[in-house]
Amino acid sequence: MSPPGAIEVEAVTDTSGVTIPDPLSVPFKSNEIYGRRRKTDKSQWGVAAPANSVNFRSQSHDHKPMAKRWDGHISNEATIRKGNSLKQAAKYLGKPGLISLGGGLPSSEYFPFEQLSLKVPTIGHFSESETKDSGVTITAGKHDLAEGKAIFDISTAFNYGQGSGSAQLLRWITEHTEMVHNPPYSDWGCTMTVGSTSALDMALRMLSKPGDMMLSEEYTFATAVETALPMGVRIAGIPMDSEGLLPEAMDSILSNWDAKARNASKPHLLYTVPSGQNPTGATQGADRRRAIYRVCQKHNIYILEDEPYYFLQMQPYTGPNAPDIPPPTSHAEFLKSLVPSLLSMDVDGRVMRLDSFSKVLSPGSRIGWITASEQIIKTYQKHADVSTQGPAGMSQLILWKLLDEHWGHPGFFDWLIHIRMEYTRRRDVMLNACAKYLPTEVVSWAPPMAGMFHWLKIEHTKHPDYPVKSIEKIEEEIFLRVIHHGALVMRGSWFYANADEKHNTLFFRATYAAAPAEKIEEAIRRLGEALRVEFKLETQEKNGNGKA
Amino acid sequence: MSPPGAIEVEAVTDTSGVTIPDPLSVPFKSNEIYGRRRKTDKSQWGVAAPANSVNFRSQSHDHKPMAKRWDGHISNEATIRKGNSLKQAAKYLGKPGLISLGGGLPSSEYFPFEQLSLKVPTIGHFSESETKDSGVTITAGKHDLAEGKAIFDISTAFNYGQGSGSAQLLRWITEHTEMVHNPPYSDWGCTMTVGSTSALDMALRMLSKPGDMMLSEEYTFATAVETALPMGVRIAGIPMDSEGLLPEAMDSILSNWDAKARNASKPHLLYTVPSGQNPTGATQGADRRRAIYRVCQKHNIYILEDEPYYFLQMQPYTGPNAPDIPPPTSHAEFLKSLVPSLLSMDVDGRVMRLDSFSKVLSPGSRIGWITASEQIIKTYQKHADVSTQGPAGMSQLILWKLLDEHWGHPGFFDWLIHIRMEYTRRRDVMLNACAKYLPTEVVSWAPPMAGMFHWLKIEHTKHPDYPVKSIEKIEEEIFLRVIHHGALVMRGSWFYANADEKHNTLFFRATYAAAPAEKIEEAIRRLGEALRVEFKLETQEKNGNGKA
Repeated sequence: MSPPGAIEVEAVTDTSGVTIPDPLSVPFKSNEIYGRRRKTDKSQWGVAAPANSVNFRSQSHDHKPMAKRWDGHISNEATIRKGNSLKQAAKYLGKPGLISLGGGLPSSEYFPFEQLSLKVPTIGHFSESETKDSGVTITAGKHDLAEGKAIFDISTAFNYGQGSGSAQLLRWITEHTEMVHNPPYSDWGCTMTVGSTSALDMALRMLSKPGDMMLSEEYTFATAVETALPMGVRIAGIPMDSEGLLPEAMDSILSNWDAKARNASKPHLLYTVPSGQNPTGATQGADRRRAIYRVCQKHNIYILEDEPYYFLQMQPYTGPNAPDIPPPTSHAEFLKSLVPSLLSMDVDGRVMRLDSFSKVLSPGSRIGWITASEQIIKTYQKHADVSTQGPAGMSQLILWKLLDEHWGHPGFFDWLIHIRMEYTRRRDVMLNACAKYLPTEVVSWAPPMAGMFHWLKIEHTKHPDYPVKSIEKIEEEIFLRVIHHGALVMRGSWFYANADEKHNTLFFRATYAAAPAEKIEEAIRRLGEALRVEFKLETQEKNGNGKA
Repeated sequence: MSPPGAIEVEAVTDTSGVTIPDPLSVPFKSNEIYGRRRKTDKSQWGVAAPANSVNFRSQSHDHKPMAKRWDGHISNEATIRKGNSLKQAAKYLGKPGLISLGGGLPSSEYFPFEQLSLKVPTIGHFSESETKDSGVTITAGKHDLAEGKAIFDISTAFNYGQGSGSAQLLRWITEHTEMVHNPPYSDWGCTMTVGSTSALDMALRMLSKPGDMMLSEEYTFATAVETALPMGVRIAGIPMDSEGLLPEAMDSILSNWDAKARNASKPHLLYTVPSGQNPTGATQGADRRRAIYRVCQKHNIYILEDEPYYFLQMQPYTGPNAPDIPPPTSHAEFLKSLVPSLLSMDVDGRVMRLDSFSKVLSPGSRIGWITASEQIIKTYQKHADVSTQGPAGMSQLILWKLLDEHWGHPGFFDWLIHIRMEYTRRRDVMLNACAKYLPTEVVSWAPPMAGMFHWLKIEHTKHPDYPVKSIEKIEEEIFLRVIHHGALVMRGSWFYANADEKHNTLFFRATYAAAPAEKIEEAIRRLGEALRVEFKLETQEKNGNGKA
């Protein structure tokens, strides 16, 4: 008995000569797995069975070029790491009638869990209150696999697994990646991570060595800097505009690289957040991405494309008084509305894309995945096998029940459209409040197109104490003034990619992700009030009811 | 409304002068949290709130000495790693009325999970069939914390957390550690890991550098070797007997360390598995542990005490025909039956103990914890914050519901006694089969006292091809012969701590953890058959019905 979402559609045993329809041309049906699934070897659903992403691609990619090799980029640590030696025994396990006293896996008899249930939204009724009313309960039993009820269960998911993650969830992830990005080289694959923070830690240990410099946006995710620095990897910041990093500036930095002055050889690695970048909220357009990719080709740069906010791309901002733009009417329209990823233009296999469920489902799963060429995937998995061992099976089972068995791909796309509209609404609350309350003589911004962050540029040259006081000192005074007025925003300098480089801009970051609408509006009002005091501007007449 | 397991007993606000009864002298009551809980700050139950193990110790440890400092042992990477810079903003969050647009945490409004339920055993009815019949369903709601129903819920656990893990589960872990080990120095604490494999990876990055040698048992956990080698850390194996590593041999290796010949400076790190060691099954007795600790003091060695099998200590083996020894009749008796840990004798704070739920609850939680001095704990947490970010919140909520709210400490101890008796039964099946079927002319063993593994010593000198063929070649031939007869056991050489060192012993490892009793017996019968053929011994008369 298969639950509705897990229907195995007509199996295609050999896809090489078979014409498969363009994913986007096929209408999605609610609660059905989109696309065709190849007949797969059932042994991979078993306890700690090896999982290979390539088995789960719905169509052949053999007509595409192979990825380049990255041997020169890969660290000594990663090069000498061998696979798990005990797996040498695994090849004998297929012998009929063999009794194994080999692997030290505990028996599921001693897992004190008989059943796991989740109440989750039905497709199209996604809000908290609708979920309370119309949500359904989905259930995993302990021995569903042996009993033929499902291909994933407690006895399997709660035991040891592989560094790749389980075949069950890896199949869903691979299908999703194929539909959304369809990488233009043949030997691409996916492997799970315990979240993108860990994936970055592991990627840097694979692709850099102490003394290296890595490229990144000049304002960047602070944790990325803090992950890199202790490994002896510094960051060279690349100037940005409202579309993120500037390819010409990157080209110029690389072409004129002075190894002596920088005390580092020419970089071979770019860390970038193309959509809704943290902290700037900048989203690289399609042309910008192509230009960046070309510069990376020119200088043989390997790219870490960190995309937690990819599905937080929002509707265009129409201003405070214009009507909202209606949501996408089909999944095809939704997918076309997204800026194409670097992965989708990666003819060389020079991109490791980092995806995450944290912003679109829940950070507490600690499940993400990377997509890259087979060489990079295998190297990553070898490290995972002797460190994280892949994401928690408990989380994997929860996500698989929801994403594969219950929602399927179409339900997940519906959910992503829901999230898109919710973030659009939140962003618009903030932008409308900024238009209403902030003194545009000293603060300016571009509407964020993706992500969680609004980036406010302060004209520090208009500050009464400039240039007597440094930018960082003025930033601190404004920061404390805003707190005094009852709001907290983050200081731009906390996101310097390289604190040793000179900066002559001053920014604050405000998020619309967490607070309710009325709180967002009130916080922005207080921010405006504080800025007026700080810059000795006149109190705002029309809303001049500040408390200071 | 508090569920029965979560009763907050009389709060002790200041424990420094209060006499608290010896844990073991107090009778445990079913389904009640053992011991006293201090009044704790409720803010630590919130989303991504900082958690400090020290807050959860039930009694004062101030009368004990402080741990030594380990600055000279700590790597450059770990020394320069700073805390998360964005936490600088956290200190302002306490200001009344402040609206934060700071942290980029997603709103739980967008977590598509309304309720999570688990069917689990009631205390004392732990078998799978009993759980089916009499198991209870425990449930976590999305907003239980805000609604005052529980201190942990979906909206909290499924959001981001700290590298330490949540305060909720860390409290339970700290209490458990205090009851079982009661470390003899004052500034000890616990922090969660994503499993001991990851903890070892992170510990080695903290406590070693490329070129170092680390000490370990001469046969050791293969994954530990594979974790260390790519970091440039080799292992020096220490000779063992049936009680594990030999302290005199360790002292001699260290006292006579030849840095030139070894191409490494004198080691400062010991990796040891004191109970049910993998692969040898050896368990260090209390005196052995004290002797090892003294040698570590003499040479200022820091100890990684990896103890996944600590609670798989079994009843004494009485032989095939003697009556079984009845289970412990109280938790106090149970705890006293356990060999004291190195942590429990650690007056210097020179032990990092690695604990795991994998062998006693389920590997799929990917939750373990370390116990060490504050200096080591803080250093570890800083790395977790920028890599794993701590264990999955989904797993944390599942374990907390079971361990804290449902079972409490007494229920968990009952469960551990259940597991102890189950493993005793499994081990006895294997030992009885060995006594029945194995040719003792060429194979010998000691009954394992803990863990999952039985270690069989082969008299390779009696092999017809010895010494013409090497030990490893003979080992391979026996291995393949056993497979031919339909059983799989692991080759001892796969567990060499250092493949470059010369070995003159030959072993196989067999596990009794996974297969059912009748399969264990049959596999051992086949092993005996294969050994007889390989060593050209006479076929066993009384059971001579082999199929070869």
